[in-house]
Amino acid sequence: MPKVADPRLADKGRLAYEWASKHMSILAKSIDRLKDERPLHGIKVAFCLHVTKETSMLVMGAKTLGADVSLCAANPLSTQDDVAAFLASQGIDVYAWRDESMDEYYSCIRSVLANRPDTITDDGSDMHVLYHKEFKGKSNYKPIGGTEETTTGVIRLRALADEGQLAYPVIAVNNAYTKHLFDNRYGTGQSTMDGILRATSILLAGKVVVVAGYGWVGKGIASRARGMGARVIVTEVDPIKALEAHMDGFAVMPMDEAARYADIVVTATGQINVVRQEHIKAMKDGVILANAGHFDVEIDVRWLESNARERRVVRDNLEEYRIDGKSIYLIGKGRIANLVAAEGHPPEVMALSFANQLLSIVYIVKNHAMMKNKVYGVPEEIDRQVAINALEAMGIRIDEPTKEQLEYAKRWL
Amino acid sequence: MPKVADPRLADKGRLAYEWASKHMSILAKSIDRLKDERPLHGIKVAFCLHVTKETSMLVMGAKTLGADVSLCAANPLSTQDDVAAFLASQGIDVYAWRDESMDEYYSCIRSVLANRPDTITDDGSDMHVLYHKEFKGKSNYKPIGGTEETTTGVIRLRALADEGQLAYPVIAVNNAYTKHLFDNRYGTGQSTMDGILRATSILLAGKVVVVAGYGWVGKGIASRARGMGARVIVTEVDPIKALEAHMDGFAVMPMDEAARYADIVVTATGQINVVRQEHIKAMKDGVILANAGHFDVEIDVRWLESNARERRVVRDNLEEYRIDGKSIYLIGKGRIANLVAAEGHPPEVMALSFANQLLSIVYIVKNHAMMKNKVYGVPEEIDRQVAINALEAMGIRIDEPTKEQLEYAKRWL
Amino acid sequence: MPKVADPRLADKGRLAYEWASKHMSILAKSIDRLKDERPLHGIKVAFCLHVTKETSMLVMGAKTLGADVSLCAANPLSTQDDVAAFLASQGIDVYAWRDESMDEYYSCIRSVLANRPDTITDDGSDMHVLYHKEFKGKSNYKPIGGTEETTTGVIRLRALADEGQLAYPVIAVNNAYTKHLFDNRYGTGQSTMDGILRATSILLAGKVVVVAGYGWVGKGIASRARGMGARVIVTEVDPIKALEAHMDGFAVMPMDEAARYADIVVTATGQINVVRQEHIKAMKDGVILANAGHFDVEIDVRWLESNARERRVVRDNLEEYRIDGKSIYLIGKGRIANLVAAEGHPPEVMALSFANQLLSIVYIVKNHAMMKNKVYGVPEEIDRQVAINALEAMGIRIDEPTKEQLEYAKRWL
Amino acid sequence: MPKVADPRLADKGRLAYEWASKHMSILAKSIDRLKDERPLHGIKVAFCLHVTKETSMLVMGAKTLGADVSLCAANPLSTQDDVAAFLASQGIDVYAWRDESMDEYYSCIRSVLANRPDTITDDGSDMHVLYHKEFKGKSNYKPIGGTEETTTGVIRLRALADEGQLAYPVIAVNNAYTKHLFDNRYGTGQSTMDGILRATSILLAGKVVVVAGYGWVGKGIASRARGMGARVIVTEVDPIKALEAHMDGFAVMPMDEAARYADIVVTATGQINVVRQEHIKAMKDGVILANAGHFDVEIDVRWLESNARERRVVRDNLEEYRIDGKSIYLIGKGRIANLVAAEGHPPEVMALSFANQLLSIVYIVKNHAMMKNKVYGVPEEIDRQVAINALEAMGIRIDEPTKEQLEYAKRWL
Repeated sequence: MPKVADPRLADKGRLAYEWASKHMSILAKSIDRLKDERPLHGIKVAFCLHVTKETSMLVMGAKTLGADVSLCAANPLSTQDDVAAFLASQGIDVYAWRDESMDEYYSCIRSVLANRPDTITDDGSDMHVLYHKEFKGKSNYKPIGGTEETTTGVIRLRALADEGQLAYPVIAVNNAYTKHLFDNRYGTGQSTMDGILRATSILLAGKVVVVAGYGWVGKGIASRARGMGARVIVTEVDPIKALEAHMDGFAVMPMDEAARYADIVVTATGQINVVRQEHIKAMKDGVILANAGHFDVEIDVRWLESNARERRVVRDNLEEYRIDGKSIYLIGKGRIANLVAAEGHPPEVMALSFANQLLSIVYIVKNHAMMKNKVYGVPEEIDRQVAINALEAMGIRIDEPTKEQLEYAKRWL
Repeated sequence: MPKVADPRLADKGRLAYEWASKHMSILAKSIDRLKDERPLHGIKVAFCLHVTKETSMLVMGAKTLGADVSLCAANPLSTQDDVAAFLASQGIDVYAWRDESMDEYYSCIRSVLANRPDTITDDGSDMHVLYHKEFKGKSNYKPIGGTEETTTGVIRLRALADEGQLAYPVIAVNNAYTKHLFDNRYGTGQSTMDGILRATSILLAGKVVVVAGYGWVGKGIASRARGMGARVIVTEVDPIKALEAHMDGFAVMPMDEAARYADIVVTATGQINVVRQEHIKAMKDGVILANAGHFDVEIDVRWLESNARERRVVRDNLEEYRIDGKSIYLIGKGRIANLVAAEGHPPEVMALSFANQLLSIVYIVKNHAMMKNKVYGVPEEIDRQVAINALEAMGIRIDEPTKEQLEYAKRWL
Repeated sequence: MPKVADPRLADKGRLAYEWASKHMSILAKSIDRLKDERPLHGIKVAFCLHVTKETSMLVMGAKTLGADVSLCAANPLSTQDDVAAFLASQGIDVYAWRDESMDEYYSCIRSVLANRPDTITDDGSDMHVLYHKEFKGKSNYKPIGGTEETTTGVIRLRALADEGQLAYPVIAVNNAYTKHLFDNRYGTGQSTMDGILRATSILLAGKVVVVAGYGWVGKGIASRARGMGARVIVTEVDPIKALEAHMDGFAVMPMDEAARYADIVVTATGQINVVRQEHIKAMKDGVILANAGHFDVEIDVRWLESNARERRVVRDNLEEYRIDGKSIYLIGKGRIANLVAAEGHPPEVMALSFANQLLSIVYIVKNHAMMKNKVYGVPEEIDRQVAINALEAMGIRIDEPTKEQLEYAKRWL
Repeated sequence: MPKVADPRLADKGRLAYEWASKHMSILAKSIDRLKDERPLHGIKVAFCLHVTKETSMLVMGAKTLGADVSLCAANPLSTQDDVAAFLASQGIDVYAWRDESMDEYYSCIRSVLANRPDTITDDGSDMHVLYHKEFKGKSNYKPIGGTEETTTGVIRLRALADEGQLAYPVIAVNNAYTKHLFDNRYGTGQSTMDGILRATSILLAGKVVVVAGYGWVGKGIASRARGMGARVIVTEVDPIKALEAHMDGFAVMPMDEAARYADIVVTATGQINVVRQEHIKAMKDGVILANAGHFDVEIDVRWLESNARERRVVRDNLEEYRIDGKSIYLIGKGRIANLVAAEGHPPEVMALSFANQLLSIVYIVKNHAMMKNKVYGVPEEIDRQVAINALEAMGIRIDEPTKEQLEYAKRWL
């Protein structure tokens, strides 16, 4: 029995789905190629993803390939209610609405797991972890395998595997080149700017933007912030990445120093309390804080809440905390800004991710018998095929290596 | 008797006003300096501007300086109803709401003119032109002077003056360096991207963006589109600007050729029918059209409307026209995209414009007796003072020329 | 009797001339169009320019149009001896060699003036000024008119005219859009980077480059330095330009503060002692100083020379001064770095400048009788024609305004 | 008995060495830390590297650590004769001069191998390969290990290892993050632009630059070319890299199409005949060809030579081939342009590479007994240490992870 905010939003959700489809031809192509074969026929497929227009395209694709699909949200704040309603209207078993409480959030995940899905596709590994905590060893239910979308989720699954606890094989879709090289850099880069603009509407030109973390997400944000005319400061704990940021022309310094110059701070580290008490105290009146990482732990929001003299909503997704006579502005409660204040990744990059997801689910269905209970990378041929599909979908031709070149690559003499 | 959509939105409008104030310290400083003098005491000041949070700061500033203020919208689609409600609650004579019909639009302008304002501050010159068509020579009412915000409006006023028709002196605020160098380039550049993202949510990286016109607005859009990873093609009719676009690393070609490659087309020319039948026919399925110019004449929307087999709203501010088996998407009905689909110029650049506006109104009040009925530039000392205020407000110190350098500048030997 | 360093270099100079011609098709086109008319037949044309491969193309062009040409250098260090030799071999009256003493430099200018040229084309106005100091009022020789290439030179001529001293009309070629918008920004921008790289060979990525002055030259240098991965700080005395640099994403501060962060300092102000004692004392060990302005007055080289404990040449065009235990490196003795350490403007931008020069000389020959003794801008039709020629030479087509658009531009109603 | 072009150049070479040292503090720090230990005491260390000012710093460093050093060139055209002379004057056994014939080139390598060095440090693997062809199995001489600088060289060594032929362990220094992420992208990127500018002196703004290959080298060149105002087209055979180039805002197409638009073509593929007959025939008159790859095989120079009607040197390192009525210009005979036409990598990036080299040589000396005859990556702790040294040398502080964060990284719950 699906549970969504308002089933009457289904028509609006259909428009969103259609608009996304228009920009996800890469994924459409992958679905088309498998349509006749229906490789997911009879398979119970669970998705724990941000319920967005892009996700609707993946969910409908899995259904087209024969799957029996259930879906819940990967973040209590990120669900597009119209999309959820549309999917429910299409016979998908949806448990998701915007602004779930944490209890509701986990209860939705449990509802999906109660269906005993064969495969679990997750974003952040909350569903994978819940399975291991509440089902594994306590029932005879065991999925044949899973996939995971994010860096953060893969880290958690690796920790599970390192302890010998992982109950089924998981493909780390995040590790596909056609996923992490693209959605983190181009998708999060753009959509985080988008979220900041929608939440604040301020001018970026001339502003000092501090980007915490120079992984692919941080790189994308730093590059887009510069592209909008901002001056960017990068903070890092990894010396090699810090050196890279420096060579890319960004100022590099520790957060306690960067905090003093910041007009905007964006966290993209996957780490906890990256912006905390001592940094916030050093910041200027009017500073804006945003988080681009998966979990809402990167900014110490609890400290803000316990120490603010006053707190009020000043715009959609923007709260003001009054501390020490200064205004500190927080976007989307410190939750992932591109999803909370904008619409998450653009459809074009989600098409890349989700083509990897769909092909990986099919791969697990076909190959799980030979797979071990560990975290796998996306098979190279899937990765490459997704890139080929993408170029074709955009009408881009590239060179083939010549015979002579294929030979040359093997020579050492 | 002010007329707004819903007076109950005043509280929300106050938040918007306060948020804008937080980012318009340049304007605040100009107001503060004149607060005691109250140079607009007893003056009836009319504003025909986009009714946004930034404008509320100017309007309240004029009131603080003693003026009796009335306000209507410079575009039937661009009013923020909460801001209008807030201003009405503060005793401003407001006639503006979102989605006015053209009749309502002009009737609002007439309501303001009926107050017989001493000064007219306009954005696009619709109020100036209406005065000349309906009041001049037909009543004894004559303003002491006016100001104009846009390039488009200044062109119209110059045409009026060339015909010897202009009835009062006007200061072309648009011509201030601290106005047009900043709001066109940085303001429209960013906010047009913002409007495109809110209306479409697509990925810009890798897209082909065609920018029609390489004036300051076009330059700003081209630069920001590139900054988001797009490939930019520029079209121009002016050979010098075309050469400049080429040297800036953009592809330059005529629109009939550019149309074939476009994923997105943005017009920024101030001209009529820049994107028309023959171009639209050459475009790809799925192309997105947006206008960044003042008037909704740059894209031939009438042709779209008369020739589309089907037309539907697919997202907020985005319509799909089905023509020749293709989908053509139009943002905000071809009206100025940054105001219709986003929030117009960011407060920081409007602070520059409006500091020029306010100081120019004060200048007219003091000097109109010595001014002729022609279009004036902003007095150089106002322009320079605004820049100095801006640097101070941002805490930026710069060098003073040394005595030796001041001497050196006069030498020829 | 021409005087060059070594006539045997003529063949090498011819190669340089041919290479430049290959990249100056814009100028070639202008010459071709006037070839049959020979509008300079019987005219004595003097050039005081940097004697480079690009200049050879202008000089040969003037000869082709019938002129009797003499030439000297506009800078004692900037002559390419092979080019001078080639031009001498072609019957041009050349007085120029690399590394002239100041006495020799002025004596070369005097040698050209002794020919009593009808027109004077200058770069920096040393020849114009020398005429006014040593010939005007002391002989009956008076040119019919002149042209001037640089901002610096135009400032000097304006000062002359302001005092009522200017003896003949001068066209400020620098003021043509197709000149100053292009050679200052793109030409000096690139060639200053080129000069820095040839002189130092260091990595620019990650370096802090301080650019003094944010006119067109400074803008070009700042943009190219950023394009090579440097972090750029701008210093300015003009608040409007300072604000522009800030909005362009550069850090703006006074020189005494910027000096502390600089790895490289480039002056581009047209002013005197912009980098002086107190700044140099604040700089880091190893800092590199370069000047991109016309005269070698922007860096206080005399102070360096009188205060260094030691001084030595460490690479071609690079000297080390030991001061206070630090090494301060100076490129090309503080003379204009792109000419001294690289090859000056690339041929493509000089083709734009020199097409303006040639057409302006022809204009003076035809119109001098109606001209006053003042500084003129380049006639608009010349400017526009040069742009049209440039686009044609590069095979770039642009749109023509439609009839409807031409009408629209005149409307105010 | 060392063999160099002219021992009298030693003083000039010393200046070059000192200038390089000034910009290689990272390497200096690594040397200093090991100076007392002298871990290379009694070790015969062979270097087959480009003999540049940067290399002199590594060679002198190895000597300081106690090594008995011999040196030859890794490319017949890349030797700086003054540097070779300086090193010879310091007791290094040098066999290298500019413009060696291929026979001389290999004979120099043989001279170094005749010393029976304990370790071989190579750039391109010509020395490693020569050892395997001429010494292995034909004498009892066997090095204890080696290192290799380039991608190209590592590919050859891997091919050797795959056939079970590799005679000693080799550390692929190229694979260190602090090497390949930095010297390929920032070093080759900048120095290839530098080489093109020195060889041609043309304007890059507005030019179409075709970059073949989008590995790290191609990425660096594309980024710098764009930074100089060029429009960049990328060609690739790898679909994932092609997709990346597209998303980075570059046009992507096959070479036969790109060739038609090119003003400049730069190859950076590591492959053979990437620019060949059919492409050259499609090119415009005046096109400029440059190679940035290790070997001179990427452009089919032999075809140019056999098919040109005429061929002449037009500038230093620039030859013109007349083919089908067009001029095709080739930089540095198709050899690696940054070394032939400029000065190779800037010292700052070579300091990173060479710190890895030196620490890897020391590692081999200490650990070779436990190593297998295979290609190793640089040990992670060396890589990280080099980055830490680099940040310290530049005075850049970064954050340490907090205890809480170290814990958090291990959690999955």
